Amino acid sequence: MRIFYRLCKMSSIMPPPQSLLKPMNFPRKSLYGPGPSNCPPRVLAACALPLLGHCHPEFFQIMDEIKEGVQYAFQTQNELTLAISGTGHAGMEAAVCNMVEPKDVVVVFSAGLWGERFADMAERHDADVRVVEKPMGAVFTLDDVKQALDHHKPSVAFIAHSESSSTVMQPLEGIGDLCKSHNCILIVDCVASLGGAPMFMDQWNIDVLYSGSQKVLSCPPGAAPISLNQRARNKLAARKTKVRSFYLDMNWLGNYWGCDGQPRKYHHTGPISSMYALREGLSMLVEEGLEECQARHQKCANILYEGLEKMGLKPFVKNKAHRLPTLTAVEVPDGIDWKKVSQYAMDKYKIELAGGLGASAGKVWRLGFMGYNAQPENVRTTLRVLQEGIEWSKAGGDAK
Amino acid sequence: MRIFYRLCKMSSIMPPPQSLLKPMNFPRKSLYGPGPSNCPPRVLAACALPLLGHCHPEFFQIMDEIKEGVQYAFQTQNELTLAISGTGHAGMEAAVCNMVEPKDVVVVFSAGLWGERFADMAERHDADVRVVEKPMGAVFTLDDVKQALDHHKPSVAFIAHSESSSTVMQPLEGIGDLCKSHNCILIVDCVASLGGAPMFMDQWNIDVLYSGSQKVLSCPPGAAPISLNQRARNKLAARKTKVRSFYLDMNWLGNYWGCDGQPRKYHHTGPISSMYALREGLSMLVEEGLEECQARHQKCANILYEGLEKMGLKPFVKNKAHRLPTLTAVEVPDGIDWKKVSQYAMDKYKIELAGGLGASAGKVWRLGFMGYNAQPENVRTTLRVLQEGIEWSKAGGDAK
Repeated sequence: MRIFYRLCKMSSIMPPPQSLLKPMNFPRKSLYGPGPSNCPPRVLAACALPLLGHCHPEFFQIMDEIKEGVQYAFQTQNELTLAISGTGHAGMEAAVCNMVEPKDVVVVFSAGLWGERFADMAERHDADVRVVEKPMGAVFTLDDVKQALDHHKPSVAFIAHSESSSTVMQPLEGIGDLCKSHNCILIVDCVASLGGAPMFMDQWNIDVLYSGSQKVLSCPPGAAPISLNQRARNKLAARKTKVRSFYLDMNWLGNYWGCDGQPRKYHHTGPISSMYALREGLSMLVEEGLEECQARHQKCANILYEGLEKMGLKPFVKNKAHRLPTLTAVEVPDGIDWKKVSQYAMDKYKIELAGGLGASAGKVWRLGFMGYNAQPENVRTTLRVLQEGIEWSKAGGDAK
Repeated sequence: MRIFYRLCKMSSIMPPPQSLLKPMNFPRKSLYGPGPSNCPPRVLAACALPLLGHCHPEFFQIMDEIKEGVQYAFQTQNELTLAISGTGHAGMEAAVCNMVEPKDVVVVFSAGLWGERFADMAERHDADVRVVEKPMGAVFTLDDVKQALDHHKPSVAFIAHSESSSTVMQPLEGIGDLCKSHNCILIVDCVASLGGAPMFMDQWNIDVLYSGSQKVLSCPPGAAPISLNQRARNKLAARKTKVRSFYLDMNWLGNYWGCDGQPRKYHHTGPISSMYALREGLSMLVEEGLEECQARHQKCANILYEGLEKMGLKPFVKNKAHRLPTLTAVEVPDGIDWKKVSQYAMDKYKIELAGGLGASAGKVWRLGFMGYNAQPENVRTTLRVLQEGIEWSKAGGDAK
């Protein structure tokens, strides 16, 4: 004690910050953008459950249940299936740092922000990155893919199933087969589509698939489901260099998650509460059923399309088959300032009408109805508010 | 819709896992180990608050408040102060991947698991790692440090303030000055000590300091406070290579956290609920006061030491000045199986008496009273339970 007080006296303690003596400010908002979406009460309640230790048997059981839930959502039987202790970006980074070694040729099919981000990450891992670019809103055909694979002979390829910046849903069938026949690992991002659109990891021969917790699963951001098939595990096992991240090393993580048949060892302290939430989010998906959940999202999307058409507004993605059911970019009409309309909706209704992202910034609103939020009444309310905001803007309401 | 149903019919959906149709199993436990520790009701309530968007002004304000709280806890005025979106290991990894470049000479002062982990991470970043090793339980003197700096001329050095595997608290005063005079960046881990023992980042010339949320701050694991001073920022700015992690890149993170004076851009989706919790944990620290909180932990430690002495048990760390006030390794008496006694305490009282970690595994219990748990009654209860468990073991209770 004496040493302690001597230390304190020697050093003058900085004063406590006054801002932390006030209560937090957190208005309840309707998050009808690209996510996070609102959490159902059941998931929020799970966040507030008492903690377990990160190596307690009850927590291992919850991890096992999450694994089963992710296998179901991904439609995979892959043993190496788990949730990364971070947000969706950490899922992408886990895919990159486990699959990519220096000098690996990596083909990135890029038509929006997620391709850009993946290319950025792969470059940080000293890959030989070849970006195959298309304009925002486009999809890649099997011919595009075949040409790129033939030409670049990559060992890894990336494509986003849900390019949430353009709100394009990339058709995937056939791409995995092409990659397999070219001895190339296919990494797919389904952060914004998982649970809201069909996904068949095994049937579609996807080697690495990852998602996030804060979209259709309606959990807080902070956990990223990921799965690697046997081909991906073979590439991991054949690495000449260690995975450059300890935190995201799938060898260690696979053991901590009980995926390798070995006794589970301490790797890191899992984010207990985030995993409680993810378990409940997956549980709700299982109770509803994957097909029913996807149909609910498609139904909301159809109501949105009809409503937009009546208002004379146009989805950014013209081909209905290429639209994400979960998130829709809507073109901002000429003469309208998207931001002022969004601000109007937030100020007056606490409804989020999100803007674009990356190249779509300033050109679109992005309206998302995911998970708990995917209910017709929310779509209808949002349509009314958007209409009111545009009329207000046209009437000069935003001129002040 | 037709396309959707056709897809579903073509592909047979895997059945939903039955385990997710049952309620979660989460007994309420007293987590008197190395962390996570129990969360106070106020922090748990914060976890269950409705989500905000990750770029909403109200969330930016909460991030600003966290920044101020971490500055206070660290006793620093560093502008680049924030919380990493991951657990303590992610904090360590952020320190490594931002400060270490390939071929950098990195000296790791290692007398337990955290030194080993840091060395592992630095090697993954192709550093020239020189481990200065001492037996578990030892501390490094200023002479040890000076010799290593003179000999290896490192650009980065690591030392754990809280070596939670041995429960040693490493004296830090003077080490930062030595590193500065040797033009070396000093990285310090204070995951298990922050808030429970004096810490003066600025006065002690620590260049990079990181911690975790699940110890004295009594939050769920999932956020890692970190701060870089100007010397660390200069090293970051002078990098010849990009930081190897996008998720942990302090350039991007510093912008997202409003630390660089530029307009805040989307980097990743911050873990909203984890940040709510961290804000409340920091708020409680501010309300109590840093010195009062530290004194409370020291008081609990003293009660523990007295009780152990009465029972004839010995703390692993002999020199009181080198003991962590938050966490105490206790030597397991000859002939006693630590694991069976721990299991007894868990089965009968739902109290966690944790075992050792790394080289201390099997040799000690680690008793931790951190944050919300740091109350004399919890220490006294634990002492009674430990005594009862040992007596039960001696009486042959564990022979079955």
